[in-house]
Amino acid sequence: MAGEFDFIAWVRKQTASSEGMLVGPGDDCAVVVPPKQPLLITTDVLTEGVDFLLRETAPEAVGRKAMAVNLSDIAAMAGSPLYAVVGLVLPQSNGIAIAEGVHRGLAEVAAKYGVVIVGGDTNSWTGGLVVSVTLFGEAPDGGAILRSGAEVGDELFVTGPCGGSLLGRHLTPTPRIAEAQELIRQFRIHAMIDISDGLAADLHHLVTESGVGAKLFADTIPIHSDAVERSKHTGRTPLQHALGDGEDFELMFAAAPGQGIPYPRIGIVVEQGFTIVCDGIESALEPTGWKHF
Amino acid sequence: MAGEFDFIAWVRKQTASSEGMLVGPGDDCAVVVPPKQPLLITTDVLTEGVDFLLRETAPEAVGRKAMAVNLSDIAAMAGSPLYAVVGLVLPQSNGIAIAEGVHRGLAEVAAKYGVVIVGGDTNSWTGGLVVSVTLFGEAPDGGAILRSGAEVGDELFVTGPCGGSLLGRHLTPTPRIAEAQELIRQFRIHAMIDISDGLAADLHHLVTESGVGAKLFADTIPIHSDAVERSKHTGRTPLQHALGDGEDFELMFAAAPGQGIPYPRIGIVVEQGFTIVCDGIESALEPTGWKHF
Repeated sequence: MAGEFDFIAWVRKQTASSEGMLVGPGDDCAVVVPPKQPLLITTDVLTEGVDFLLRETAPEAVGRKAMAVNLSDIAAMAGSPLYAVVGLVLPQSNGIAIAEGVHRGLAEVAAKYGVVIVGGDTNSWTGGLVVSVTLFGEAPDGGAILRSGAEVGDELFVTGPCGGSLLGRHLTPTPRIAEAQELIRQFRIHAMIDISDGLAADLHHLVTESGVGAKLFADTIPIHSDAVERSKHTGRTPLQHALGDGEDFELMFAAAPGQGIPYPRIGIVVEQGFTIVCDGIESALEPTGWKHF
Repeated sequence: MAGEFDFIAWVRKQTASSEGMLVGPGDDCAVVVPPKQPLLITTDVLTEGVDFLLRETAPEAVGRKAMAVNLSDIAAMAGSPLYAVVGLVLPQSNGIAIAEGVHRGLAEVAAKYGVVIVGGDTNSWTGGLVVSVTLFGEAPDGGAILRSGAEVGDELFVTGPCGGSLLGRHLTPTPRIAEAQELIRQFRIHAMIDISDGLAADLHHLVTESGVGAKLFADTIPIHSDAVERSKHTGRTPLQHALGDGEDFELMFAAAPGQGIPYPRIGIVVEQGFTIVCDGIESALEPTGWKHF
């Protein structure tokens, strides 16, 4: 149809000279060089009205976020991102401008992290905007870092301050790809996860998968200034925001103790239980992070 | 949330003993054994009201079709399907039953073709149902069969009768995975495509990518009985339905001449032009297949 967003032409332009791409998006499938290490696959769907509001958020920002949330999943395995495909369902009103904006955002983040967008599918309908990204990466030489490797005695760390991301940071996530690769190069990392559901919820995922428990130390948890700002209006403390708000995209990891890891040490892995020590008092911690659905 | 469709549990059950799967859907990424041959990647998004109507089509059928259309793209490259991920956006009304139905359909077709569903993402919203499937496969030993390899003098074939798929066949596509692999094992196949947009439209894709022309012979084009049935109500001829209707999921291919290929020979590849010979008269053929968007 005249005037439609020409996705194939767009991808062809993006990928004209891309390493690893054998056959482009004009064919039934993209054909790419297979990785030598195990293949990492992750997918995330962003939905208008749930993950963003188009009246508040530019399509470029939606595109950036859609790519970044998937990169964060690759980062959590200490992997290297390689290729992405994009599924787009466009609203009829202003659909072409939205498609162009989303793709500009996707391309910006993809280029920054060396991801080649190799194909996709675009539909138009009477409903809202849906952006689905599937990202492929390669596991590191020593194998991917899983959620399930935490051992009793490990120390728990987080790569940056948490909480209050809804003030704006959730739209500009910075996937910790390089940080994760540097960590496994220098240190013995046993388990890792990104904080998309919230620090408490994702720690709960990690200890459950590992069959262990955890004890957090409230006074060492780095709290973002956005969490302090939000707490002024929500009746919840900055620590509650740091523990419960999702979409932070920092990494949390368990590592063998005593390695001098240069990140905030927020707790330790114990045999069982899920607790937080605050002002010398240890109490049960609820996995009250942001829940999808 | 209590009562939500537990996608991770579902995938875990499906993949409990699946070959090639190293780490399951409970982690940030799925981790799978990489293929030795180049990796094929394809994605398709099915959208309520555009690709199906839930008041007419069971969620199981939507799931079957969502998996099959991607398998058809792998078939068109003569590849072997391996892994899939699923993005699902669910309407709030009856969402869990719909999710379960879609996943039953996906799983049924995946199992039939040896595909392992390794992960996905599920959202719920006030809008309609969206099913996004991304499928990975492996190219055959001699390399994937592209659209762009047709040579002047090649013969053109189609794997089965075309037209009228909207009478029901479009919901039960049979991807020609085995047929394509058998074809490249026995014969010199130069170019291939699946007939998702329509025989004329997809032939036009193939000759454009190959930089050649094509001449079809109307009396050798296999016409499905559904095309005859539809023509009684549409004012169009069965041949017009065979040429123009999409969603057939047969394969069309160009092969070196004189190999005795046991499929209907529908035309030849020429230097230029895009024509059809009907009752001895050669006339211009329009790429009037069903167009998306």
